[in-house]
Amino acid sequence: MIEPSQRVQETKESYIRNILKVIQQPGMLSLAGGLPDASRFPKAILAQAAQHLADDPSIYQYGATEGYAPLRKWLIDSLALADDVMVTSGSQQALDLIARSYLNPGDQVLCEAPSYLGALQIFDLAQAKTLTVKSDSTGPDLDHLESMLSQNQIKLFYAVPDFQNPSSSCWTLEKRQGVALLCERFDVAFIEDAPYRELRYSGETLPSVSSLCKGQAFYMGSFSKIATPSMRVGFVMASQKLLEPLKKVKQASDLHSALPMQQMLLATITHPEFPAHLEQLKQHYCARRDVLVDALNRHLSDWIDFEVPEGGMFVWAKLKQHQAHDLAAKALDYQVAVVPGDEFWPSDASIDYQAIRLNFTALDDAQLEQAVERLAEVMSNS
Amino acid sequence: MIEPSQRVQETKESYIRNILKVIQQPGMLSLAGGLPDASRFPKAILAQAAQHLADDPSIYQYGATEGYAPLRKWLIDSLALADDVMVTSGSQQALDLIARSYLNPGDQVLCEAPSYLGALQIFDLAQAKTLTVKSDSTGPDLDHLESMLSQNQIKLFYAVPDFQNPSSSCWTLEKRQGVALLCERFDVAFIEDAPYRELRYSGETLPSVSSLCKGQAFYMGSFSKIATPSMRVGFVMASQKLLEPLKKVKQASDLHSALPMQQMLLATITHPEFPAHLEQLKQHYCARRDVLVDALNRHLSDWIDFEVPEGGMFVWAKLKQHQAHDLAAKALDYQVAVVPGDEFWPSDASIDYQAIRLNFTALDDAQLEQAVERLAEVMSNS
Repeated sequence: MIEPSQRVQETKESYIRNILKVIQQPGMLSLAGGLPDASRFPKAILAQAAQHLADDPSIYQYGATEGYAPLRKWLIDSLALADDVMVTSGSQQALDLIARSYLNPGDQVLCEAPSYLGALQIFDLAQAKTLTVKSDSTGPDLDHLESMLSQNQIKLFYAVPDFQNPSSSCWTLEKRQGVALLCERFDVAFIEDAPYRELRYSGETLPSVSSLCKGQAFYMGSFSKIATPSMRVGFVMASQKLLEPLKKVKQASDLHSALPMQQMLLATITHPEFPAHLEQLKQHYCARRDVLVDALNRHLSDWIDFEVPEGGMFVWAKLKQHQAHDLAAKALDYQVAVVPGDEFWPSDASIDYQAIRLNFTALDDAQLEQAVERLAEVMSNS
Repeated sequence: MIEPSQRVQETKESYIRNILKVIQQPGMLSLAGGLPDASRFPKAILAQAAQHLADDPSIYQYGATEGYAPLRKWLIDSLALADDVMVTSGSQQALDLIARSYLNPGDQVLCEAPSYLGALQIFDLAQAKTLTVKSDSTGPDLDHLESMLSQNQIKLFYAVPDFQNPSSSCWTLEKRQGVALLCERFDVAFIEDAPYRELRYSGETLPSVSSLCKGQAFYMGSFSKIATPSMRVGFVMASQKLLEPLKKVKQASDLHSALPMQQMLLATITHPEFPAHLEQLKQHYCARRDVLVDALNRHLSDWIDFEVPEGGMFVWAKLKQHQAHDLAAKALDYQVAVVPGDEFWPSDASIDYQAIRLNFTALDDAQLEQAVERLAEVMSNS
């Protein structure tokens, strides 16, 4: 039997995928996933958008690799970050296309520590060398970033400046400006992954890093967290020159993304009731966050440290005495699932501290309270 | 500015993409594309399928990487070729996932000569070494295949046994059996690409090669030619063991394919009127083929040799005296577009003979006649 490729063998496993069967058992309360609340999908708007799917017959023929022209125009006009945009099958695909277009095996890519697991998998598949920059809740350590950039041959710097998965950190304006300057100085392309940017519950929206280093940046956007994830419509915005190689890779990999989905997504996000939907969604998630934070303060303050996230979908809890992997494994016996923080470091990086990631968008208020009570039992018995 | 990766720089360009702007000029008649006839998409069935998109709310949440369970079940029950199936964003993505899952740079892959350009691009992106086996309208030369397999370390053999793009060749039963035996003997995985299999206009359907070497084969299916291409729903069927690495790659590359498209596609192909639609479509394309064949016989018999294809979307015309690239370039001046055959050989292979590919599904009867008249002018003036 033929052997799988090296790139697959070297790619980090998904912790959640590996425990999926356990998580799906009845009675399990999962804080491990990153699912939006399906009860809050904009059903009426989606149903209306679906009604109009047959109106434009041209969306049933093969389409342009770059995407559905009206959606591309809307994105460029709305964001004004660059002169070109490509529609992708979720922003996940955008990152995969960037990696395949620019990374040779052994090339160096930089990311935050911790970082998004799906990005680490993509860099593994590209057989890149993934380095990390020290980061805290305000963003990357700029001195460390400068020394990393000067001492290495880094090609791409990937980050999630707004409410990162897993840490929920949101970069300060100073950090954004500093990173933009350093990327320009060292001619490193900045990849800004922004799936949670619209999910801010308090504080003020800050400029995207891409807007501070135009021409040097890829901005990846998603509608998975504010509309619905299953349509798999995301995008990457950048200069024409930076996007050019991506077209060749996307054409070979899937020709183009589903056109009816692109039309339906555009109809959804431009629907007159979409802004009200988004406002309600944010209030809903903000209330969920408050329920989780309150429960953590009451039950787990002896064992964890955390900051209250201003947006996003996660609380990142640093462990004072427990080992994350042992804790997560034991938690399953108590019918509660969490993701151990170690999973969010590249395979060969040294883990800076022990933490667990807790999602607050998928469970309801009572379940969140009960999940934290179970975690308190696990921690007190470990 | 950062440099694109080696794999992108080494990937064959798409001839059609490069001349797209010229093809789209008013007055141009294009025999160059491979587009289905948009006027024959099953509009009423698609519209009904779209109406039911909002019925099952679960299709708006993140889904399984393997695909929409009811579609997977339908495929496994209908085809009975293997115990597992993965839904992909078109069968194009299925091949890309196979290549990324199994090919290391430098690995050898075998294909027919000529072969599907989109497959050659995928093997380039995987930095594989693409070898060719001598082929004619009955399929590959089995002696040459045996010697290629015994003298090389070939991991995958990719082919389109039913109405291949570009040659429209359809393998005989003897060739199918011979290839299946050789793949088993040399432990080579056979990749069967079958987008045109349902478009047979005469003769009898033959067993798929995959059915003759189960466990050793990937079978890739598409609905682009019989329903609509823009939904980007295809699949790859194989043993669980062969598909396992693909799941990891697909998860990293786009998580899963659009769920509403998978539901809508299933509703389309299981619609009670779909068989009648398919029957009418085949009659329509058969009539188009006959118009093109008749025109070629009347106008071009001095300059080309061809066999009448029993299915598919192309006539593969071998040139008696012209050079394909010169001819194709000159044809554009006469407002008719064709693809030179050279494009369908791997970059470093020697071209066996001169040919052009002529599509008969996109133009109507009068346009087909006129396009051939223009080609006759080009040929007589070259």
